[in-house]
Amino acid sequence: MLIKDIDFEKQNGLVPVIIQEENSEKVLMLGFMNEESLRQTIDKGYAVFWSRTRKGLWLKGETSGNRFKVKEILTDCDKDTLLIKVEVKGNGVACHTGNKSCFFEEIK
Amino acid sequence: MLIKDIDFEKQNGLVPVIIQEENSEKVLMLGFMNEESLRQTIDKGYAVFWSRTRKGLWLKGETSGNRFKVKEILTDCDKDTLLIKVEVKGNGVACHTGNKSCFFEEIK
Repeated sequence: MLIKDIDFEKQNGLVPVIIQEENSEKVLMLGFMNEESLRQTIDKGYAVFWSRTRKGLWLKGETSGNRFKVKEILTDCDKDTLLIKVEVKGNGVACHTGNKSCFFEEIK
Repeated sequence: MLIKDIDFEKQNGLVPVIIQEENSEKVLMLGFMNEESLRQTIDKGYAVFWSRTRKGLWLKGETSGNRFKVKEILTDCDKDTLLIKVEVKGNGVACHTGNKSCFFEEIK
């Protein structure tokens, strides 16, 4: 499977990207990538997202040091979503709140 | 955290929903929910998605029997994505291709 096979058109040039820590199997966050950010992710070996708020490419951890080192990139049966397994560099924390994972609030 | 606190507006009334099998910690699929499908998910105890192609509510596994029994519903720091931990009923398979998970193709 190659980058050109990914369906970026379904969601205006973006695909949702699930980030899972390879060792702990914890789901850390969900981000978005366009074709260029996926290409840079593969080239650099670190996750580069498309920031919908800043409208630009965003090398995760550029400031904090908590980069996502890419271990495996998978796509789903519809080719419109990615699952990237990573190792978290720096202090190992994914969320800007200081939590390991961005998913920490339960809904009832 | 309550349903009303979720940010459905960011993506036209929908939020992406990551489905993770509670026991194996495998990421199974990504779906979308609107407010009504999240409400039904909580009420029924089984995942109900919004199908973007069929434009309607969709009780996952209604035909196949492979329903997603909800164990935990989490939201992220931005309140615009859900992570639902599930037990897969029926034959335990999430993907219509017969794979356990929809994420089975590697990108290189």
